[in-house]
Amino acid sequence: MSPMPYASLSRRVGVLLLGLLLPVASMAQDGTRARARELGVAPGIFAPGRFNAITDVAGVEVGQVTLVEGDNIRTGVTAILPHGGNVYRSRVPAAAHVGNGFGKFIGTTQVNELGELETPILLTCTLCVWKAADAMAAWLLEQPDMQSVRSLNVVVGETNDGGLNDIRARPVTADAVRRALSTAKSGPVQEGSVGAGTGTVAFGWKGGIGTSSRVLPQKLGGWTVGVLVQSNFGGVLQVSGAPVGRELDRYAFQQDVAARTGAGKLADDRGDGSIIIVIATDAPLGDRNLRRLASRGMMGLGRTGSSASNGSGDYVLAFSTAESVRRAFDAPRLETTELANDQMGAVFQAGVEAVEEAIYNSLFMATTVSGNGQTVEAIPLDRVREVLRRHGIAPAVK
Amino acid sequence: MSPMPYASLSRRVGVLLLGLLLPVASMAQDGTRARARELGVAPGIFAPGRFNAITDVAGVEVGQVTLVEGDNIRTGVTAILPHGGNVYRSRVPAAAHVGNGFGKFIGTTQVNELGELETPILLTCTLCVWKAADAMAAWLLEQPDMQSVRSLNVVVGETNDGGLNDIRARPVTADAVRRALSTAKSGPVQEGSVGAGTGTVAFGWKGGIGTSSRVLPQKLGGWTVGVLVQSNFGGVLQVSGAPVGRELDRYAFQQDVAARTGAGKLADDRGDGSIIIVIATDAPLGDRNLRRLASRGMMGLGRTGSSASNGSGDYVLAFSTAESVRRAFDAPRLETTELANDQMGAVFQAGVEAVEEAIYNSLFMATTVSGNGQTVEAIPLDRVREVLRRHGIAPAVK
Amino acid sequence: MSPMPYASLSRRVGVLLLGLLLPVASMAQDGTRARARELGVAPGIFAPGRFNAITDVAGVEVGQVTLVEGDNIRTGVTAILPHGGNVYRSRVPAAAHVGNGFGKFIGTTQVNELGELETPILLTCTLCVWKAADAMAAWLLEQPDMQSVRSLNVVVGETNDGGLNDIRARPVTADAVRRALSTAKSGPVQEGSVGAGTGTVAFGWKGGIGTSSRVLPQKLGGWTVGVLVQSNFGGVLQVSGAPVGRELDRYAFQQDVAARTGAGKLADDRGDGSIIIVIATDAPLGDRNLRRLASRGMMGLGRTGSSASNGSGDYVLAFSTAESVRRAFDAPRLETTELANDQMGAVFQAGVEAVEEAIYNSLFMATTVSGNGQTVEAIPLDRVREVLRRHGIAPAVK
Amino acid sequence: MSPMPYASLSRRVGVLLLGLLLPVASMAQDGTRARARELGVAPGIFAPGRFNAITDVAGVEVGQVTLVEGDNIRTGVTAILPHGGNVYRSRVPAAAHVGNGFGKFIGTTQVNELGELETPILLTCTLCVWKAADAMAAWLLEQPDMQSVRSLNVVVGETNDGGLNDIRARPVTADAVRRALSTAKSGPVQEGSVGAGTGTVAFGWKGGIGTSSRVLPQKLGGWTVGVLVQSNFGGVLQVSGAPVGRELDRYAFQQDVAARTGAGKLADDRGDGSIIIVIATDAPLGDRNLRRLASRGMMGLGRTGSSASNGSGDYVLAFSTAESVRRAFDAPRLETTELANDQMGAVFQAGVEAVEEAIYNSLFMATTVSGNGQTVEAIPLDRVREVLRRHGIAPAVK
Repeated sequence: MSPMPYASLSRRVGVLLLGLLLPVASMAQDGTRARARELGVAPGIFAPGRFNAITDVAGVEVGQVTLVEGDNIRTGVTAILPHGGNVYRSRVPAAAHVGNGFGKFIGTTQVNELGELETPILLTCTLCVWKAADAMAAWLLEQPDMQSVRSLNVVVGETNDGGLNDIRARPVTADAVRRALSTAKSGPVQEGSVGAGTGTVAFGWKGGIGTSSRVLPQKLGGWTVGVLVQSNFGGVLQVSGAPVGRELDRYAFQQDVAARTGAGKLADDRGDGSIIIVIATDAPLGDRNLRRLASRGMMGLGRTGSSASNGSGDYVLAFSTAESVRRAFDAPRLETTELANDQMGAVFQAGVEAVEEAIYNSLFMATTVSGNGQTVEAIPLDRVREVLRRHGIAPAVK
Repeated sequence: MSPMPYASLSRRVGVLLLGLLLPVASMAQDGTRARARELGVAPGIFAPGRFNAITDVAGVEVGQVTLVEGDNIRTGVTAILPHGGNVYRSRVPAAAHVGNGFGKFIGTTQVNELGELETPILLTCTLCVWKAADAMAAWLLEQPDMQSVRSLNVVVGETNDGGLNDIRARPVTADAVRRALSTAKSGPVQEGSVGAGTGTVAFGWKGGIGTSSRVLPQKLGGWTVGVLVQSNFGGVLQVSGAPVGRELDRYAFQQDVAARTGAGKLADDRGDGSIIIVIATDAPLGDRNLRRLASRGMMGLGRTGSSASNGSGDYVLAFSTAESVRRAFDAPRLETTELANDQMGAVFQAGVEAVEEAIYNSLFMATTVSGNGQTVEAIPLDRVREVLRRHGIAPAVK
Repeated sequence: MSPMPYASLSRRVGVLLLGLLLPVASMAQDGTRARARELGVAPGIFAPGRFNAITDVAGVEVGQVTLVEGDNIRTGVTAILPHGGNVYRSRVPAAAHVGNGFGKFIGTTQVNELGELETPILLTCTLCVWKAADAMAAWLLEQPDMQSVRSLNVVVGETNDGGLNDIRARPVTADAVRRALSTAKSGPVQEGSVGAGTGTVAFGWKGGIGTSSRVLPQKLGGWTVGVLVQSNFGGVLQVSGAPVGRELDRYAFQQDVAARTGAGKLADDRGDGSIIIVIATDAPLGDRNLRRLASRGMMGLGRTGSSASNGSGDYVLAFSTAESVRRAFDAPRLETTELANDQMGAVFQAGVEAVEEAIYNSLFMATTVSGNGQTVEAIPLDRVREVLRRHGIAPAVK
Repeated sequence: MSPMPYASLSRRVGVLLLGLLLPVASMAQDGTRARARELGVAPGIFAPGRFNAITDVAGVEVGQVTLVEGDNIRTGVTAILPHGGNVYRSRVPAAAHVGNGFGKFIGTTQVNELGELETPILLTCTLCVWKAADAMAAWLLEQPDMQSVRSLNVVVGETNDGGLNDIRARPVTADAVRRALSTAKSGPVQEGSVGAGTGTVAFGWKGGIGTSSRVLPQKLGGWTVGVLVQSNFGGVLQVSGAPVGRELDRYAFQQDVAARTGAGKLADDRGDGSIIIVIATDAPLGDRNLRRLASRGMMGLGRTGSSASNGSGDYVLAFSTAESVRRAFDAPRLETTELANDQMGAVFQAGVEAVEEAIYNSLFMATTVSGNGQTVEAIPLDRVREVLRRHGIAPAVK
């Protein structure tokens, strides 16, 4: 979670007004940006769900608050609710995988010890995690049926938006957290430079929130696997294998590889940054198989060109919403019906595919953002389309 | 970290005035309480250091703030500084062991990934960890030489003092954190119902902060190993093996064992609670061997009668202060001289001994505390002495 | 699993005849040896089962073959069968905990990945594990209903009996393995210098096989927890806390502590060695909670005076025999009823108690063994009794 | 490590004579097969070393023995020696990552506990691991300077060649192991259907041994990273992203995806199988950073189209040959100079690239093998070239 990946690429004195920025941020909706499938990028063999989003897993809700204030605040909060009810009372089995632990994913050790999630998941900026965690705890403790609760394992992940955002101000407020939690809903999920992705950078371009899903064929169970990512990492971008990073001349280690660095130049980029990957499924999985599923998130990440650089805090959290594995918080016995180990193959495959596509969506839907004296550009989709075309990838003709 | 272990043991309508309580708290200094060695309890074969405290490891500093306010606030903060300098700039190798992850030890995944500690360690109350973490981050970011820092892995552990303390108020303030950090010092360490131990409960008696150390003979390296614990757990107390818990008729599962529970009685205690164990050493250890040392903390815990019950958040963090393993934060190479694997045996033994004794100290030095409508008594040392005597343990005659 | 713990303690030119040795080995049955309870040593609060053995868990079977041949072969095999049926077809949930990985416990990574055991467990000598594993695989592949099996995760643990045994000869034969597996039975279990414990050493005395069990009160579920250990480790022996090691003047690091080592003396003992701990239970536990239970084995080990020295390969394997968590090898769904997390406390406590007692039994039942040019004495029970008596521990008067 | 991935694809009554088969096996040398680079497949940004093999890491040696006997034995042994000396006396830091633990990688827990490798690494067939391990132990114990050794942590991995090979016969002999070890050499490494890859299957085609390397630019340290794989897994093959599996109509889950399975058809393939990945480097890495490097192996695997299906035993072992981190077995102190964490990025990138390419090499160099009543075809390179061309990948024009 090293701050400021690729930060030196495009620095400008940023005198951006909020009014100026907001239209930029809303570009994501105006047609100049596109999801991966619109470019013909459809990783894998399984089909996405209705929204091609984590919310295709029935019950999962997402709430996002974007904080764009003055010249220097470009951050936000993204909340993922496993279901619409009280998660503390009706827990979902869950597991966290530490792909590269250079990040601060609060709550993961308890998730793995007990095999369950008892709160929603928040994503935000690195130096904001503690305030966000405290705010979520406060909000939860106020809820009905939570008056006697004296312990709570809130789960809050982060990546470092310290390039575009004045992260040292720790600008995420309790109010932002409450709004993210209380406005969470099912249906389409906003992607790109929103919520916890407002100020993030991926592969040297603007990163952000991305989502995708897969629905298995009935013969393989018919389960849905949904993914949401907060992308803020680096590497050598490849899109369905097409070497977009190299062809757009922006990738980790490029100066060292090309030996183009003259004396006095800044050190080369190291592909640092981070990603948080959240995987939801309605497949009835126990916590051990959720942990296995979570670990596969790193394989989807690898397919986009990351090698999990040192400074990357890469965490994956997976949970199952299936009723047959749900846990009442005070039940003395756990009666569950879960998939046996050898039914996991297709679920793993679906997870890897959705992670890969969610990352592309986070990039392709992100819009240029300026803040904190810097500008990070959205990846130019026209140039991406060209590269893809040269590598045999094009949208299906309708 | 289940709240309120043994809470039902002694409940009173608590109308305690602050003025009333403070004298009680200061009893620890007045001679009615004693450290384990004064009772003849001296676990193991190695000798303690000068203060028999974590601060016997040169450079380690401890700062504590006790929060006793009104009827219901009985909590605090304990800070452990690996050395007097800037830990972010001059990092110590470190490792965390998750004995039982039902607790919220913030920062442990990054400690293990990078093998180092870059901030002091804070201990506090469960629902206070996030505010405390945020406050420590703020304090650190303000320090000289920290103005460009945009990522920080603060390390904050907790146990649940929700019996004696109105934990839902999350009463730990930024000011308390700053005071604990800025007043940290070497030398003797206050034990018992102070700092993060103000409201904790162990084995059904008042727990708290305890510390101890061991100095290895020169032939075994002459290293010092120091331990500090925040005790808040349960089980079947034994002191150097003497069955104090049973003889004082207070231990986990006792009603079920004795079949004394009549209809309508409260459920029996399950030995829940938590402990945070911090181990410091000047032995030059790499992070892998520190992780091994940390794992031995659970063996010292076991010797006191714990079996790490489900609700116990039992974490151990170990670090080395040795210059020969110190890490400048921006050095491209790590040049270190560390103990080889087969030199670890005596260090492990010293760690186990010091953990055991630190726990006894936390109990024996703790004073009765009332708060939040409850009173938890200090373990009666006269009765402990009797039990010990019957089991062949007595202070050496001077 | 360093070879030859305490080896220098009693070295003799060994011209031992088999005929001479066998009567010694059978002393275990002649009344001069005793189980811990006969000495008044009864760790913890729960009662043992009928045999105070792992076989108190219904269905569990133990088979042992002792190899005493010529002057130099003092080793054997101990087999533990989770149930009397085909374990490959009817698998038990299981988990392994690596307390200190300096040992070769074959099969543990697959046990943890799949959360299950598909074969019996074998214990034997360090350099014999591979031959023993191959022999068990061969035996299993021959069984009815195993003709189509082409993958098998045999589980074989070891400790190093290289002091009393000519371990470099890798003397365990396929025949010994087959006999251990095919003669396994329920009921009482032979302890001490038998099976895989024939040549092991613990705390400087003859170690070996030990077993114990606990039955929880009905209010806590009524479950049985059984333990079997192969003890071969060191440390500072304490028996229910009584400092037997120090009072018998035989403990790790003693020369360094006492500064009695003159020039030219052999290096002091480091408490090395190893232990394998197997925990069986009929409590319906999922694999995650079995892993937690296994980790508690180290706390029981700690209570006997071990601090898991560097050279100690300390592994714990736990499994549940409950029908409600049993897994048919080809079932597409796992329908299980298991204990919820917060029911685990008493099971953990029972496990810790039984581990502690099993270790004492392994020592107290072991008989003096000579082999490979050395003699390792059985711990003298009369002297142990004295020490215990001075520490308030004595057999109940009948 | 489920046996027989894709086994049902091409079953024939196999009456193959050895004489018939051997010419087929030697096709690898006759020009009809090719390494990935000859097809224009050059993953990543860094250049390979001289041999594009694990042996580009100075000192690393590889020895292979191919066992093709009668109709049914199609297996072998591949040995990797970290250096030409006595590895027990001069140990290399090492670490193992369990990507998916459904496999039997003997010795990994000790490697991770001690952070070092003390023997060569063997790869072989699943049911042969134990015999191979015993044979390597015997061979090592016979070596000069090994006469007093009584403990040895041999490291042996496997994948399941039970489709083409009569694995139940456990056909690997001690002699084969000795020959692999004693004939190991530096320089070019044979790939494809040789050694431990003789009978393996990957992505439904013949898999086997593959190798590759990367040399970092001097500015990034100039280190070499070399990889050797034993490929035997499944998934949806993509080559530098080009969807070769789908275009050749052979991939995991294809029947379920295409709904082409009529009644009575065999169950669809689940992409099972396994891979062992060995990573060597001359970069001076400590064991923690080697473990991080090993974990990246899964990202390279993911890039080829694997999602680590349930039945896949996916292990990665990494070691460093650098003198500055070498460990004399009896040194009381470890004096090392290693790369700091933030120098790891390029090494991770190199590792991921080399793993990806090594897997392609294992496929492209493998030749058709018949055995055990089945035939598994080599992937047809002409058709692969076509697919690659359509996706913009072609050999550079000379």
